[in-house]
Amino acid sequence: MSTIDTPEAPLKSSGAPEYSSSKGLVADVALRVLLFATALVAIIVMVTSKQTKMIPVAPGVVVPMTAKFTQSPAFIYFIAALSVACLYSIITAMVSVLALMRGGASTKMQFHFVMFDALLLGIVAAATGAAGGVAYIGYKGNTHTRWNKICNTHDSFCFHIASSLVLSLISSIALLLLVWLSLYVLSKKIARR
Amino acid sequence: MSTIDTPEAPLKSSGAPEYSSSKGLVADVALRVLLFATALVAIIVMVTSKQTKMIPVAPGVVVPMTAKFTQSPAFIYFIAALSVACLYSIITAMVSVLALMRGGASTKMQFHFVMFDALLLGIVAAATGAAGGVAYIGYKGNTHTRWNKICNTHDSFCFHIASSLVLSLISSIALLLLVWLSLYVLSKKIARR
Repeated sequence: MSTIDTPEAPLKSSGAPEYSSSKGLVADVALRVLLFATALVAIIVMVTSKQTKMIPVAPGVVVPMTAKFTQSPAFIYFIAALSVACLYSIITAMVSVLALMRGGASTKMQFHFVMFDALLLGIVAAATGAAGGVAYIGYKGNTHTRWNKICNTHDSFCFHIASSLVLSLISSIALLLLVWLSLYVLSKKIARR
Repeated sequence: MSTIDTPEAPLKSSGAPEYSSSKGLVADVALRVLLFATALVAIIVMVTSKQTKMIPVAPGVVVPMTAKFTQSPAFIYFIAALSVACLYSIITAMVSVLALMRGGASTKMQFHFVMFDALLLGIVAAATGAAGGVAYIGYKGNTHTRWNKICNTHDSFCFHIASSLVLSLISSIALLLLVWLSLYVLSKKIARR
Protein backbone atom coordinates (compact mmCIF):
# COMPACT_ATOMS: atom_id res chain seq x y z
CA MET A 1 0.00 0.00 0.00
CA SER A 2 2.77 2.42 -0.83
CA THR A 3 0.64 4.19 -3.47
CA ILE A 4 -1.65 7.07 -2.52
CA ASP A 5 -5.13 5.65 -2.02
CA THR A 6 -7.30 8.73 -1.87
CA PRO A 7 -7.53 10.97 -4.93
CA GLU A 8 -7.62 14.22 -2.88
CA ALA A 9 -4.26 13.60 -1.20
CA PRO A 10 -2.17 16.02 -3.31
CA LEU A 11 -4.74 18.80 -2.86
CA LYS A 12 -4.86 18.56 0.94
CA SER A 13 -1.12 18.50 1.48
CA SER A 14 -0.84 22.24 0.74
CA GLY A 15 -2.97 23.25 3.78
CA ALA A 16 -1.76 24.30 7.25
CA PRO A 17 -1.12 20.96 8.93
CA GLU A 18 -0.27 22.07 12.51
CA TYR A 19 -3.39 24.19 12.95
CA SER A 20 -5.80 21.43 11.99
CA SER A 21 -4.12 18.92 14.30
CA SER A 22 -4.27 21.18 17.35
CA LYS A 23 -7.94 21.92 16.56
CA GLY A 24 -8.43 18.17 16.76
CA LEU A 25 -6.53 18.07 20.06
CA VAL A 26 -8.67 20.86 21.54
CA ALA A 27 -11.82 18.91 20.61
CA ASP A 28 -10.17 15.79 22.10
CA VAL A 29 -9.52 17.56 25.43
CA ALA A 30 -13.07 19.02 25.45
CA LEU A 31 -14.60 15.57 24.92
CA ARG A 32 -12.43 14.07 27.66
CA VAL A 33 -13.51 16.83 30.06
CA LEU A 34 -17.15 16.11 29.10
CA LEU A 35 -16.55 12.41 29.71
CA PHE A 36 -15.01 13.15 33.11
CA ALA A 37 -17.85 15.50 34.15
CA THR A 38 -20.69 13.20 33.08
CA ALA A 39 -19.07 10.08 34.56
CA LEU A 40 -18.33 11.81 37.87
CA VAL A 41 -21.84 13.29 38.21
CA ALA A 42 -23.39 9.94 37.19
CA ILE A 43 -21.43 8.20 39.98
CA ILE A 44 -22.39 10.84 42.57
CA VAL A 45 -26.08 10.79 41.58
CA MET A 46 -26.14 6.97 41.68
CA VAL A 47 -24.34 6.73 45.06
CA THR A 48 -26.64 9.31 46.69
CA SER A 49 -29.82 7.57 45.49
CA LYS A 50 -30.63 5.86 48.84
CA GLN A 51 -34.28 6.28 49.84
CA THR A 52 -36.20 4.84 52.80
CA LYS A 53 -39.98 4.81 52.74
CA MET A 54 -42.69 3.42 55.00
CA ILE A 55 -44.54 0.78 53.00
CA PRO A 56 -47.92 -0.59 54.20
CA VAL A 57 -47.78 -4.39 54.25
CA ALA A 58 -51.10 -4.97 56.06
CA PRO A 59 -53.92 -2.68 57.30
CA GLY A 60 -52.37 -0.52 60.00
CA VAL A 61 -48.88 -2.05 59.62
CA VAL A 62 -46.10 -0.12 57.90
CA VAL A 63 -42.47 -1.21 57.58
CA PRO A 64 -39.52 0.93 56.51
CA MET A 65 -38.12 -0.21 53.17
CA THR A 66 -34.81 1.10 51.89
CA ALA A 67 -33.83 1.18 48.23
CA LYS A 68 -30.14 1.73 47.45
CA PHE A 69 -27.92 0.98 44.51
CA THR A 70 -25.87 -1.72 46.31
CA GLN A 71 -28.94 -3.98 46.29
CA SER A 72 -28.45 -4.66 42.57
CA PRO A 73 -25.26 -6.18 41.08
CA ALA A 74 -25.99 -4.32 37.81
CA PHE A 75 -25.75 -0.96 39.58
CA ILE A 76 -22.50 -2.00 41.33
CA TYR A 77 -21.00 -2.90 37.95
CA PHE A 78 -22.27 0.45 36.65
CA ILE A 79 -20.41 2.32 39.42
CA ALA A 80 -17.24 0.28 38.81
CA ALA A 81 -17.29 0.88 35.04
CA LEU A 82 -17.95 4.60 35.36
CA SER A 83 -15.22 4.95 38.01
CA VAL A 84 -12.74 3.42 35.57
CA ALA A 85 -13.98 5.78 32.82
CA CYS A 86 -13.68 8.76 35.19
CA LEU A 87 -10.12 7.91 36.21
CA TYR A 88 -9.18 7.17 32.59
CA SER A 89 -10.58 10.51 31.41
CA ILE A 90 -8.51 12.44 34.00
CA ILE A 91 -5.26 10.74 32.94
CA THR A 92 -5.85 11.01 29.19
CA ALA A 93 -7.11 14.62 29.40
CA MET A 94 -3.88 15.60 31.19
CA VAL A 95 -1.76 13.80 28.60
CA SER A 96 -3.73 15.52 25.80
CA VAL A 97 -3.23 18.94 27.40
CA LEU A 98 0.52 18.24 27.68
CA ALA A 99 0.57 17.23 23.99
CA LEU A 100 -1.34 20.40 23.10
CA MET A 101 1.25 22.53 24.93
CA ARG A 102 4.04 20.79 23.04
CA GLY A 103 2.29 21.63 19.75
CA GLY A 104 0.78 18.29 18.69
CA ALA A 105 0.23 14.62 19.47
CA SER A 106 2.31 11.80 18.03
CA THR A 107 0.63 9.17 15.89
CA LYS A 108 1.68 6.45 18.33
CA MET A 109 0.04 8.24 21.26
CA GLN A 110 -3.19 8.78 19.30
CA PHE A 111 -3.17 5.13 18.26
CA HIS A 112 -2.90 3.95 21.88
CA PHE A 113 -5.53 6.45 23.06
CA VAL A 114 -8.12 5.38 20.52
CA MET A 115 -7.52 1.69 21.36
CA PHE A 116 -8.34 2.31 25.01
CA ASP A 117 -11.20 4.67 24.06
CA ALA A 118 -12.82 1.82 22.10
CA LEU A 119 -12.34 -0.60 25.02
CA LEU A 120 -13.85 1.91 27.47
CA LEU A 121 -16.73 2.50 25.03
CA GLY A 122 -17.58 -1.21 25.21
CA ILE A 123 -17.34 -1.27 29.03
CA VAL A 124 -19.39 1.91 29.62
CA ALA A 125 -22.02 0.96 27.01
CA ALA A 126 -22.42 -2.48 28.63
CA ALA A 127 -22.74 -0.87 32.08
CA THR A 128 -25.36 1.59 30.80
CA GLY A 129 -27.25 -1.30 29.21
CA ALA A 130 -27.12 -3.47 32.34
CA ALA A 131 -28.25 -0.68 34.68
CA GLY A 132 -30.88 0.42 32.15
CA GLY A 133 -32.30 -3.10 31.83
CA VAL A 134 -32.66 -3.44 35.61
CA ALA A 135 -33.98 0.11 36.01
CA TYR A 136 -36.65 -0.55 33.38
CA ILE A 137 -37.93 -3.53 35.41
CA GLY A 138 -38.01 -1.27 38.49
CA TYR A 139 -39.95 1.33 36.51
CA LYS A 140 -42.46 -0.88 34.65
CA GLY A 141 -42.25 -4.20 36.50
CA ASN A 142 -42.80 -7.48 34.67
CA THR A 143 -46.19 -9.17 34.94
CA HIS A 144 -44.99 -12.42 33.33
CA THR A 145 -42.41 -13.12 36.02
CA ARG A 146 -44.43 -11.26 38.73
CA TRP A 147 -41.61 -8.78 39.33
CA ASN A 148 -43.32 -5.78 40.95
CA LYS A 149 -42.36 -2.22 40.03
CA ILE A 150 -40.65 -0.20 42.76
CA CYS A 151 -40.73 3.29 41.24
CA ASN A 152 -44.31 3.91 42.44
CA THR A 153 -43.03 3.80 46.04
CA HIS A 154 -39.36 4.85 45.76
CA ASP A 155 -39.78 7.77 43.38
CA SER A 156 -36.70 9.74 44.43
CA PHE A 157 -34.52 6.61 44.13
CA CYS A 158 -35.79 6.04 40.60
CA PHE A 159 -35.25 9.66 39.65
CA HIS A 160 -31.62 9.39 40.75
CA ILE A 161 -31.13 6.15 38.78
CA ALA A 162 -32.74 7.64 35.64
CA SER A 163 -30.59 10.79 35.82
CA SER A 164 -27.48 8.68 36.29
CA LEU A 165 -28.42 6.57 33.25
CA VAL A 166 -28.87 9.65 31.03
CA LEU A 167 -25.44 10.93 32.14
CA SER A 168 -23.76 7.60 31.44
CA LEU A 169 -25.40 7.54 28.01
CA ILE A 170 -23.75 10.93 27.35
CA SER A 171 -20.45 9.41 28.57
CA SER A 172 -20.84 6.57 26.06
CA ILE A 173 -21.58 9.01 23.25
CA ALA A 174 -18.54 11.11 24.27
CA LEU A 175 -16.37 7.99 24.05
CA LEU A 176 -17.80 7.14 20.61
CA LEU A 177 -17.12 10.71 19.43
CA LEU A 178 -13.55 10.43 20.82
CA VAL A 179 -12.99 7.28 18.74
CA TRP A 180 -14.46 8.99 15.65
CA LEU A 181 -12.39 12.14 16.19
CA SER A 182 -9.13 10.21 16.54
CA LEU A 183 -9.97 8.21 13.43
CA TYR A 184 -10.68 11.40 11.52
CA VAL A 185 -7.37 12.94 12.62
CA LEU A 186 -5.49 9.72 11.74
CA SER A 187 -7.13 9.40 8.30
CA LYS A 188 -6.38 13.07 7.57
CA LYS A 189 -2.73 12.43 8.44
CA ILE A 190 -2.71 9.65 5.83
CA ALA A 191 -4.40 11.81 3.19
CA ARG A 192 -1.98 14.69 3.84
CA ARG A 193 1.22 12.74 3.26
CA MET B 1 1.96 17.33 11.23
CA SER B 2 3.96 16.89 8.05
CA THR B 3 6.99 15.47 9.86
CA ILE B 4 7.42 11.75 10.48
CA ASP B 5 6.22 11.06 14.03
CA THR B 6 7.38 7.50 14.65
CA PRO B 7 11.11 6.80 14.64
CA GLU B 8 10.75 3.37 12.95
CA ALA B 9 9.09 4.75 9.80
CA PRO B 10 12.18 4.63 7.53
CA LEU B 11 12.90 1.03 8.55
CA LYS B 12 9.40 -0.24 7.81
CA SER B 13 9.00 1.40 4.43
CA SER B 14 11.45 -1.05 2.86
CA GLY B 15 9.23 -4.10 3.59
CA ALA B 16 6.57 -5.64 1.35
CA PRO B 17 3.63 -3.26 1.79
CA GLU B 18 0.95 -5.10 -0.21
CA TYR B 19 1.41 -8.38 1.64
CA SER B 20 0.97 -6.85 5.08
CA SER B 21 -2.19 -4.98 4.10
CA SER B 22 -3.86 -8.06 2.60
CA LYS B 23 -2.92 -10.00 5.75
CA GLY B 24 -4.85 -7.32 7.63
CA LEU B 25 -7.78 -7.69 5.24
CA VAL B 26 -7.83 -11.48 5.66
CA ALA B 27 -8.01 -11.02 9.45
CA ASP B 28 -10.72 -8.39 8.88
CA VAL B 29 -12.84 -10.81 6.82
CA ALA B 30 -12.26 -13.61 9.37
CA LEU B 31 -13.42 -11.37 12.24
CA ARG B 32 -16.50 -10.28 10.27
CA VAL B 33 -17.38 -13.93 9.57
CA LEU B 34 -16.93 -14.68 13.31
CA LEU B 35 -19.18 -11.70 14.11
CA PHE B 36 -21.81 -12.93 11.64
CA ALA B 37 -21.73 -16.51 12.98
CA THR B 38 -21.90 -15.57 16.68
CA ALA B 39 -24.62 -12.94 16.14
CA LEU B 40 -26.75 -15.31 14.03
CA VAL B 41 -26.45 -18.24 16.46
CA ALA B 42 -27.14 -15.88 19.42
CA ILE B 43 -30.35 -14.71 17.72
CA ILE B 44 -31.46 -18.29 16.91
CA VAL B 45 -30.70 -19.55 20.43
CA MET B 46 -32.56 -16.60 21.99
CA VAL B 47 -35.62 -16.92 19.70
CA THR B 48 -35.93 -20.69 20.32
CA SER B 49 -35.74 -20.28 24.12
CA LYS B 50 -39.51 -20.65 24.76
CA GLN B 51 -40.28 -23.08 27.59
CA THR B 52 -43.62 -24.02 29.16
CA LYS B 53 -43.65 -25.72 32.55
CA MET B 54 -46.35 -26.80 34.99
CA ILE B 55 -45.86 -24.77 38.15
CA PRO B 56 -47.63 -25.74 41.40
CA VAL B 57 -49.44 -22.69 42.81
CA ALA B 58 -51.35 -24.50 45.56
CA PRO B 59 -51.42 -28.11 46.82
CA GLY B 60 -52.82 -30.21 43.96
CA VAL B 61 -53.12 -27.22 41.59
CA VAL B 62 -50.64 -26.72 38.76
CA VAL B 63 -50.80 -24.05 36.08
CA PRO B 64 -48.78 -23.95 32.85
CA MET B 65 -46.31 -21.06 32.81
CA THR B 66 -44.51 -20.05 29.65
CA ALA B 67 -41.22 -18.17 29.58
CA LYS B 68 -40.19 -16.61 26.28
CA PHE B 69 -37.87 -13.79 25.28
CA THR B 70 -40.67 -11.44 24.13
CA GLN B 71 -41.77 -11.04 27.77
CA SER B 72 -38.77 -8.78 28.47
CA PRO B 73 -38.07 -5.52 26.59
CA ALA B 74 -34.33 -6.02 27.25
CA PHE B 75 -34.35 -9.29 25.29
CA ILE B 76 -36.30 -7.67 22.42
CA TYR B 77 -33.68 -4.92 22.21
CA PHE B 78 -31.01 -7.63 22.34
CA ILE B 79 -32.55 -9.37 19.28
CA ALA B 80 -32.88 -6.05 17.42
CA ALA B 81 -29.26 -5.02 18.11
CA LEU B 82 -27.84 -8.41 17.14
CA SER B 83 -29.96 -8.48 13.96
CA VAL B 84 -28.44 -5.16 12.94
CA ALA B 85 -24.95 -6.50 13.75
CA CYS B 86 -25.65 -9.66 11.75
CA LEU B 87 -26.87 -7.75 8.67
CA TYR B 88 -23.96 -5.30 8.98
CA SER B 89 -21.43 -8.13 9.18
CA ILE B 90 -22.77 -9.73 5.96
CA ILE B 91 -22.54 -6.47 4.00
CA THR B 92 -19.09 -5.45 5.30
CA ALA B 93 -17.65 -8.98 4.94
CA MET B 94 -18.70 -8.99 1.27
CA VAL B 95 -17.18 -5.54 0.70
CA SER B 96 -13.97 -6.68 2.42
CA VAL B 97 -13.79 -9.81 0.25
CA LEU B 98 -14.25 -7.65 -2.88
CA ALA B 99 -11.46 -5.34 -1.66
CA LEU B 100 -9.25 -8.37 -1.01
CA MET B 101 -9.81 -9.59 -4.58
CA ARG B 102 -8.87 -6.16 -5.93
CA GLY B 103 -5.61 -6.29 -3.96
CA GLY B 104 -6.27 -3.94 -1.04
CA ALA B 105 -8.67 -1.61 0.73
CA SER B 106 -8.65 2.17 0.34
CA THR B 107 -8.02 4.35 3.39
CA LYS B 108 -11.42 5.99 2.96
CA MET B 109 -13.22 2.64 3.04
CA GLN B 110 -11.31 1.53 6.14
CA PHE B 111 -12.08 4.83 7.82
CA HIS B 112 -15.82 4.44 7.22
CA PHE B 113 -15.77 0.78 8.26
CA VAL B 114 -14.08 1.44 11.59
CA MET B 115 -16.51 4.31 12.34
CA PHE B 116 -19.48 1.97 11.96
CA ASP B 117 -17.61 -0.82 13.77
CA ALA B 118 -17.24 1.45 16.81
CA LEU B 119 -20.94 2.43 16.67
CA LEU B 120 -21.97 -1.23 16.44
CA LEU B 121 -19.61 -2.05 19.32
CA GLY B 122 -21.52 0.42 21.51
CA ILE B 123 -24.92 -0.95 20.43
CA VAL B 124 -24.02 -4.65 20.84
CA ALA B 125 -22.22 -4.06 24.17
CA ALA B 126 -25.26 -2.18 25.52
CA ALA B 127 -27.57 -4.98 24.34
CA THR B 128 -25.37 -7.62 25.98
CA GLY B 129 -25.34 -5.57 29.18
CA ALA B 130 -29.12 -5.03 29.20
CA ALA B 131 -29.93 -8.70 28.54
CA GLY B 132 -27.25 -9.77 31.02
CA GLY B 133 -28.62 -7.51 33.75
CA VAL B 134 -32.14 -8.91 33.34
CA ALA B 135 -30.89 -12.50 33.00
CA TYR B 136 -28.93 -12.15 36.25
CA ILE B 137 -32.13 -11.20 38.08
CA GLY B 138 -33.81 -14.25 36.53
CA TYR B 139 -30.91 -16.42 37.69
CA LYS B 140 -30.35 -15.08 41.21
CA GLY B 141 -33.52 -13.09 41.93
CA ASN B 142 -33.43 -10.03 44.17
CA THR B 143 -34.53 -10.38 47.77
CA HIS B 144 -34.58 -6.60 48.40
CA THR B 145 -37.24 -5.93 45.76
CA ARG B 146 -38.79 -9.42 46.15
CA TRP B 147 -38.12 -10.33 42.53
CA ASN B 148 -38.20 -14.14 42.48
CA LYS B 149 -35.70 -16.12 40.41
CA ILE B 150 -37.16 -18.04 37.47
CA CYS B 151 -34.21 -20.22 36.48
CA ASN B 152 -35.05 -22.85 39.13
CA THR B 153 -38.27 -23.62 37.21
CA HIS B 154 -37.47 -22.64 33.61
CA ASP B 155 -34.01 -24.21 33.37
CA SER B 156 -33.97 -24.77 29.59
CA PHE B 157 -35.09 -21.15 28.97
CA CYS B 158 -32.26 -19.87 31.16
CA PHE B 159 -29.74 -22.11 29.46
CA HIS B 160 -30.74 -20.66 26.09
CA ILE B 161 -30.47 -17.09 27.41
CA ALA B 162 -27.05 -17.76 28.97
CA SER B 163 -25.70 -19.33 25.76
CA SER B 164 -27.02 -16.42 23.74
CA LEU B 165 -25.31 -13.96 26.12
CA VAL B 166 -21.95 -15.73 25.82
CA LEU B 167 -22.25 -15.61 22.02
CA SER B 168 -23.12 -11.91 21.99
CA LEU B 169 -20.16 -11.26 24.29
CA ILE B 170 -17.96 -12.92 21.63
CA SER B 171 -19.65 -10.67 19.02
CA SER B 172 -18.75 -7.59 21.10
CA ILE B 173 -15.14 -8.76 21.43
CA ALA B 174 -15.01 -9.41 17.65
CA LEU B 175 -16.20 -5.84 17.03
CA LEU B 176 -13.58 -4.46 19.43
CA LEU B 177 -10.87 -6.50 17.68
CA LEU B 178 -12.13 -5.18 14.31
CA VAL B 179 -11.73 -1.60 15.55
CA TRP B 180 -8.24 -2.39 16.89
CA LEU B 181 -7.22 -4.16 13.67
CA SER B 182 -8.35 -1.25 11.47
CA LEU B 183 -6.54 1.21 13.74
CA TYR B 184 -3.38 -0.90 13.54
CA VAL B 185 -3.57 -1.01 9.73
CA LEU B 186 -4.24 2.75 9.54
CA SER B 187 -1.38 3.63 11.93
CA LYS B 188 0.97 1.36 9.98
CA LYS B 189 -0.01 3.21 6.80
CA ILE B 190 1.04 6.46 8.48
CA ALA B 191 4.32 5.00 9.75
CA ARG B 192 5.16 3.63 6.31
CA ARG B 193 4.84 6.89 4.40
